[in-house]
Amino acid sequence: METKNIGLRGIEVADTRISNIDGEKGKLIYRGYDILDLTKNSNFEETAYLLLYDELPTKDQLSEFNAKLIDARYIPKQMQKNMGNWRKDADPMDMLQAFVAALAGYYDEEFADKNASYDRAINLIAKIPTIIASWQRIRNGLDIVDPDSSLGHAANFLYMMSGERPDPEVEKIFDVCLILHADHTFNASTFTARQVASTRAHMYSASSAAIGALSGELHGGANTEVMKMLLEIETIDKVEPWIKEQIAKGQRIMGMGHAVYKTYDPRAQVLKELSRKLAEKTGEPWFAMTEKVETATIAEMKKQKGRDIYPNVDLYSASIYYMLKIPVDLNTPIFAISRVVGWAAHIIEEKFAEAAPKPALYRPKASYVGKYCGPEGCEYKPLDLRK
Amino acid sequence: METKNIGLRGIEVADTRISNIDGEKGKLIYRGYDILDLTKNSNFEETAYLLLYDELPTKDQLSEFNAKLIDARYIPKQMQKNMGNWRKDADPMDMLQAFVAALAGYYDEEFADKNASYDRAINLIAKIPTIIASWQRIRNGLDIVDPDSSLGHAANFLYMMSGERPDPEVEKIFDVCLILHADHTFNASTFTARQVASTRAHMYSASSAAIGALSGELHGGANTEVMKMLLEIETIDKVEPWIKEQIAKGQRIMGMGHAVYKTYDPRAQVLKELSRKLAEKTGEPWFAMTEKVETATIAEMKKQKGRDIYPNVDLYSASIYYMLKIPVDLNTPIFAISRVVGWAAHIIEEKFAEAAPKPALYRPKASYVGKYCGPEGCEYKPLDLRK
Repeated sequence: METKNIGLRGIEVADTRISNIDGEKGKLIYRGYDILDLTKNSNFEETAYLLLYDELPTKDQLSEFNAKLIDARYIPKQMQKNMGNWRKDADPMDMLQAFVAALAGYYDEEFADKNASYDRAINLIAKIPTIIASWQRIRNGLDIVDPDSSLGHAANFLYMMSGERPDPEVEKIFDVCLILHADHTFNASTFTARQVASTRAHMYSASSAAIGALSGELHGGANTEVMKMLLEIETIDKVEPWIKEQIAKGQRIMGMGHAVYKTYDPRAQVLKELSRKLAEKTGEPWFAMTEKVETATIAEMKKQKGRDIYPNVDLYSASIYYMLKIPVDLNTPIFAISRVVGWAAHIIEEKFAEAAPKPALYRPKASYVGKYCGPEGCEYKPLDLRK
Repeated sequence: METKNIGLRGIEVADTRISNIDGEKGKLIYRGYDILDLTKNSNFEETAYLLLYDELPTKDQLSEFNAKLIDARYIPKQMQKNMGNWRKDADPMDMLQAFVAALAGYYDEEFADKNASYDRAINLIAKIPTIIASWQRIRNGLDIVDPDSSLGHAANFLYMMSGERPDPEVEKIFDVCLILHADHTFNASTFTARQVASTRAHMYSASSAAIGALSGELHGGANTEVMKMLLEIETIDKVEPWIKEQIAKGQRIMGMGHAVYKTYDPRAQVLKELSRKLAEKTGEPWFAMTEKVETATIAEMKKQKGRDIYPNVDLYSASIYYMLKIPVDLNTPIFAISRVVGWAAHIIEEKFAEAAPKPALYRPKASYVGKYCGPEGCEYKPLDLRK
């Protein structure tokens, strides 16, 4: 009953030009550019352009791209009305998966054309923040806040959600979070998007499916779990004994460890500094607690299991979002705000890559280990004779 | 730029007890039983039970299962109202993907429990026909037809869609179609469902994603394409020249050929006889035309390319659905009515299989072929300096 390729680890399934992880050196590049350079010099919109079009934009290209994104931020009023019929306690990721699929019912689409795919990508990147912010307002019985065309992508989302325009420092922190989460090669949700696109399904369909994959607690759900852990631990003095006990029980510590990085995740490094900065600004304990989770986990893993372990992207994003007053259950939807850029780029690559051989419909093999009653199959016993 | 594992062909990604294809002998088994035996002796509900629970049910088990399915057929009135806000010409697969995801917003769910997964599976199997039939009524401005608890699964769907109870022969034909489409190992939609479930996402989320994959024209969309082809050819005398020309142009003939079967697809064999029977009953030309497509394609492929080719499951289902007065664009949604059984069984297996090693989050490797400017990455040029 051995499974030969557990979770497809190490199996190269397709070529990509979009991003690359160097797990040994702890480097992540987008279209050739180190993400550390992008977090220092770029912003979310420019990074999105780079990921979609394979080049940094010129001034004109960027301002055209920005204008398109701003234009596309509104979602149909009717969609907001329909949200009012959902259970107020519904999982926001379920809501997002359904309403992203529903975009196809409100917008007319041409499927075969590559440029149409770019338009749909822009539509999705622009509308996902509005869907999430609308839901946040609706479920709390608040009036919807329309997008503000004077604000950038990061600031506009925070504004639509809270009704308040963020200060520039907060805007920058959130913008960097969006840059860092935008792509990460063939993670589970991106591979889902490629899988669905490989059947020639369209951009909304493949992105909605990717949101489903992101919702799982082993993937995008992890940053929510980190914040739940911090809230459960409560205070900094309880961190060490809590971590010690969990590791002794063989439990995973959320936000620690990664399948690909064998060293410090470069995204975690940047997020750690942002969390530190926000904590200095707000006076909240969450950065210090998270740092303690990091050091305690590293120390206990070494002591108890003799293993090195490092933070991943989810460890410090949890405290950042909490200090930005984002409700804990929106952590994963916010991951989607950023990752949709990667999904869109990969969907376009999957459907339109010009390199030969072109990617084909993914159809792996199953290893059958079930009932076998010889080449003719098991004998069908009529209902009356079954016990 | 060689892709090493095109479409994952031949890569064994997980164990399964659910179904097995013998591509050489043209055999498909569900949980050990030959589907030919099941089409002769069983019905859709019993086959669904078999696929979900790994055993044929006893009388009591089957009647309990039937009762649960009948109880779960209703969908929220509010969902039907929301459908009224969609574009009437929206793709029914987009609608289905969105409303299956939306089920999670109307039903309260427990995620970790295996029995809850079975309840959700029943809920999905029962409700997907109602979602599709409701949409068919709504987009045509007709009153919704409530489910009839005296009818079986196949008959009830045809009744909800048309408002008329089908005669027993028609019911049986449609029931056999549902049996034949219920599972087919790791096809693209089922593997999508498993992929999403591997992140621990829930049953509705994974099934909605699978619907996205099924919507692609290379997967479930193929039976729609077959009917479009027949309608385009128009009359039987035009079949041969049309096929000849298409093959000469290097075009694929929809409904012909399969990646796994190297001989006659056993499902196509059964469907061919059902199509013949329906044509005798209705006097319509679609069976004869389809048979001509089969023989002409086989002859031309041999002559022009020296290759053997056989019909697949989509070739004859198209004419059957057409003669059952099902609108062409509902062919793929009807595929989902049946295949959801396989998705649900595979989602449960993916999440709860007890064999070691347990399936893990699918995270394949990418082969990076994009820009490379050395280990430090490409130099970030400020916006003002770009041309």
